[in-house]
Amino acid sequence: MTDLIASLRRIVGDNHVLTDGDLSAYEQDWRRREHGKALAVVRPGSTEEVATVVKACAANGTAIVPQGGNTGLVVGSTPDTSGTQVVLNLGRMNAVRALDKDNLTITVDAGCILQSLQERCEKEGFLFPLSLAAEGSCTIGGNLGTNAGGTQVVRYGNTRELCLGLEVVNAQGEIWNGLKGLRKDNTGYDLRNLFIGSEGTLGVITAATMKIYPMPASQLTAWAALPSFEAAVQLLGLAHQYLGAGLTGFEVMNRFALTLVDKHMPQLRVPFIDNPDFPYAVVLENSDSESEAHARARFEALMEAAFEQEIALDAVVAENLGQAHNLWHIRESIPLAQVEEGLNIKHDISVPISRIPAFVEHATAVLAHKVPGMRLVNFGHLGDGNLHFNVQAPEGMDAKAFLEEREHEINHIVYDAVAEFGGSISAEHGIGTLKAATLPDYQSPVALSMMRSIKQALDPQGIMNPNCMLARQA
Amino acid sequence: MTDLIASLRRIVGDNHVLTDGDLSAYEQDWRRREHGKALAVVRPGSTEEVATVVKACAANGTAIVPQGGNTGLVVGSTPDTSGTQVVLNLGRMNAVRALDKDNLTITVDAGCILQSLQERCEKEGFLFPLSLAAEGSCTIGGNLGTNAGGTQVVRYGNTRELCLGLEVVNAQGEIWNGLKGLRKDNTGYDLRNLFIGSEGTLGVITAATMKIYPMPASQLTAWAALPSFEAAVQLLGLAHQYLGAGLTGFEVMNRFALTLVDKHMPQLRVPFIDNPDFPYAVVLENSDSESEAHARARFEALMEAAFEQEIALDAVVAENLGQAHNLWHIRESIPLAQVEEGLNIKHDISVPISRIPAFVEHATAVLAHKVPGMRLVNFGHLGDGNLHFNVQAPEGMDAKAFLEEREHEINHIVYDAVAEFGGSISAEHGIGTLKAATLPDYQSPVALSMMRSIKQALDPQGIMNPNCMLARQA
Repeated sequence: MTDLIASLRRIVGDNHVLTDGDLSAYEQDWRRREHGKALAVVRPGSTEEVATVVKACAANGTAIVPQGGNTGLVVGSTPDTSGTQVVLNLGRMNAVRALDKDNLTITVDAGCILQSLQERCEKEGFLFPLSLAAEGSCTIGGNLGTNAGGTQVVRYGNTRELCLGLEVVNAQGEIWNGLKGLRKDNTGYDLRNLFIGSEGTLGVITAATMKIYPMPASQLTAWAALPSFEAAVQLLGLAHQYLGAGLTGFEVMNRFALTLVDKHMPQLRVPFIDNPDFPYAVVLENSDSESEAHARARFEALMEAAFEQEIALDAVVAENLGQAHNLWHIRESIPLAQVEEGLNIKHDISVPISRIPAFVEHATAVLAHKVPGMRLVNFGHLGDGNLHFNVQAPEGMDAKAFLEEREHEINHIVYDAVAEFGGSISAEHGIGTLKAATLPDYQSPVALSMMRSIKQALDPQGIMNPNCMLARQA
Repeated sequence: MTDLIASLRRIVGDNHVLTDGDLSAYEQDWRRREHGKALAVVRPGSTEEVATVVKACAANGTAIVPQGGNTGLVVGSTPDTSGTQVVLNLGRMNAVRALDKDNLTITVDAGCILQSLQERCEKEGFLFPLSLAAEGSCTIGGNLGTNAGGTQVVRYGNTRELCLGLEVVNAQGEIWNGLKGLRKDNTGYDLRNLFIGSEGTLGVITAATMKIYPMPASQLTAWAALPSFEAAVQLLGLAHQYLGAGLTGFEVMNRFALTLVDKHMPQLRVPFIDNPDFPYAVVLENSDSESEAHARARFEALMEAAFEQEIALDAVVAENLGQAHNLWHIRESIPLAQVEEGLNIKHDISVPISRIPAFVEHATAVLAHKVPGMRLVNFGHLGDGNLHFNVQAPEGMDAKAFLEEREHEINHIVYDAVAEFGGSISAEHGIGTLKAATLPDYQSPVALSMMRSIKQALDPQGIMNPNCMLARQA
C-alpha cells in the first residue's frame, strides 16, 4: 500500500494525494449518514493523470471510488470504513474546454461545478437547463454518473438527455474519447448511456459534451391552487397542450409541505396558504422564445381553461423576476422546512403519471393505517412522474427514534406500493450504497443478471466503486 | 437442423415457419444489394414464442437474424448465404398494447408499422414524431434496433430519445420486461439504450413504450433560398433562437439535388429553381401549440431577420396544407430523382454543425480533384448535422461501372474527410453488414474493445445477428 501511495504521489504530485488531517469532506456523505476511511484521496489534474492513477490502482487490485462534488443522496461517492479504497476526486479538473455556438454544445471537464457551467452559458447568451438543489456544489461528472434529474426534466430530460458525448477512463485505465458532440451517430453500442448513470462502477467520466439552448426570451412562473391530486395530473395535460415545449417546469406540493414552509419560513408568504380548501398546489414555468407578453398570454389562456374545467381554483402569475424567484424559493425550501421540523424518511420514487393519483391514495392509506399520525410531505416533479414522498414522524414524537425504529419498514411500505403501480424506487438519486441491498427486491432478475454480466465484462477485477449499486449481487 | 425446424414448427405453428418458395422479401435487403439464404423464416406471434424460439436456436447453436420491415439501408436484417441462419421476423406482432393519454406514452409490439403507430396516435389527438421515408413499411422494432433518425430529430431526437422502455428477449431466451414507461428511473445500468441501436446483435426487441406529444395546433412549412452553405448554418442558429422548440424540421439541399428533382419530376415545381444564384435551399417546419396565425407570425419574424442579415435571399411560406406537402415532397423526392438519374454512391454522415461548411468545402474539393466530373447530391438533416453526401457518376458515364470501379475509393475519401472533421460514418442508418468491415477504421479502438466485451458478455455463443456490426472484429 505504501508503494501504491508513493506511485500516486508521483503521478499527481504530493500536494494532491491526501492521507492525513480532516478528510471529512471526502469521506463523509452529504447527508452525513456514513463516515468512511480512505486509503488516500487523489486529486488528479488531467485525464492522463486519471488514466495513470487507475492503472496503478488496477495493478495493485485497489478499489477506486470516483467523486465529484460529493453531494449525492444515496452514499455513492464515499469510501467504506476499510481504509483500503482510493477516493478519486475530480474537483481539480474543472475547465470549460469549448463552447460551440453553432453546434449548441459545451465541452467541460467532469469536475466543473454545475452552477459555473450554467453561468458560463448564460454569459454567452445560452441556457444549460440542468438545475437542482445542489447546483452550487455538485459537478457535471457527478450529475452524469448519477443521471441527475431536477426541475427542468419535463422539457429537457435528465442529465442523460442533455449529453452528446463523454470522455471516460475505463477500469483498465484506457482513455475513451467520445466527445464528438454529434446529434446522430450510429457506429456501435451506446457506451455513452451505459456510463451515464453507472455511478462510477464501470469507469471514470473525465469530460463531457453537453447540449445548450438559446436563452429563451422569457421564463415566466405561475402558482396554482388545486382541489385534488387528480386535478394536478389534468392540469399537467392541459399545460402540455397549451404551452407545448414551453412547459419547462411543473412541480406539485401537498398542503402539509407548504404549511411546513409557512411555519418555519413565514417571510416567504406561501400563496393561498390560509385557504384549507386547497390540498395541493403546483408551480409552473413557461419558457417562451418570443416575449414575456406572449408567455403571459399563453399562461392566461391555460389558466382560463383550467378554471373553466375546475381543475384549478386560484392562481397567480409572477409579475416580475423577484416574484418568480419567490415562488420557486417556496418550492425549493420544502427540504429545509422538513429539517426544521425534524428528521424524516425520504423517498425518491416515480410512477407512470396516469397512475400517480391512485398510487398516492393507496400509499397514503397504507401508511396512515400502519403508522398512525405519520405526516406526509408529498412534493416533487409531477411533470416527470417523480415524487419525493417523505414521511415525517407523528407530531410530538422523537424524530430520531422514529427513524431508527420505522425507516426500514416504511421504506418497504412505500416501495411495495411503488412496485404495485409499476414505478421505480429511485427516480433521480440513484442506488449508491444506500439502496444497494434493496435493489434486488424491486429490479427485474433478468435485468440484474444482464447488469452483472456487463459489470463483469468491463470491470473484471471489480475495482470500480465496488460497494455501490450492484454490490450485494456480486 | 431438421430437428430444430421441427421444434420451431411446434413453437409458432407450421404456417409461420417458412422454408420453401420465394422468400426474397425476407432474404434480400431493401436496396437489393445482397440476397441471402435462410435456414428458415420464423414468424412468432407472441413474446413467449420469441423467447422459446431463441432458446431452441441457442440450444442448437443456430444464429438468429432479427427482422422488422426489412427496410434498412446497411444490410443488417437479412441472412448470409450459408443457409444456416434463422430469420426471426416480428411482422405478426403488430398490436398497439396501450395508449396512455395522461402519461403521454404508447406501448406497442415491435412489429407495428411506423405509419400505423403515427396514425393511431393522430386518431387520438397525439403526435408520434418519428418520421422517415420508409414509414409505410418499417417497424418500430427496426427503428429501435437501428436507432433510426428522420426529419424531426432537430426537435424530438432519434428513436432512442423517443423511447421510455423496452421488452427484450435476450440471447439466452429470457424475457426482460422494461416497459414501465417512466421518465425517470435510476435503478441500474441503462439496458434500454444498450439494446437500442444494437442492430439485433444482443437480443430481440419485442415491444416498446414510446413518448407521444399533444398534436400541435399548427405545423407550418417554409422554403428559403440561400447564398451559401454557411448561410444555412447561420439560418439554423437564427431559427433555434426565433422558434425555440417550435423548430421541428430543418433540411438542406444543394442546387444539383434540386435540379435532379426538377428534371425528373417537373410537376413538383421546385421554388426558385430558375435562379442560379441560389446554391442551397432549406425546408423549415415550425410547430406551434397556439395557432397557425402565430406560427406564421414567428416565421415572418425569423425571415425578416434572415433577409436583414442576408443569410436568406428569398423565401416562401406554405399557404395551406397542400403547399406544405408539396415542399416536403420535393425534399423527399431527391432519392428517387437520383435513381432516375442513375445509381449513385450513398453516404450517411454527420459532422458537428459548426464544422459542416468547412467539411463540405474540403470533401467536395478532394472529390472533384480525384473524381473529375463527379456530381454531388448534397442534402440532409442539417438541424442534426446529418448529410446524405451522395456521389453521382459524371454525366454520360455508365453508373453501374462507376460504382463497381470507384465506390470503395470514394467511400474512403468521404469517410477520411468525415474523420478529419470529427464526424461519424453512420449518422442514422447504422453499421449492418455493409459497413462492418469499415467500422474498425473509423471507430475508437478503446470503444470497440468495450463493445466486444459487452457482446461477449450478453451473447457468449455469438448467435445474435453474427455478421452484423462488430462481425469483422470477433
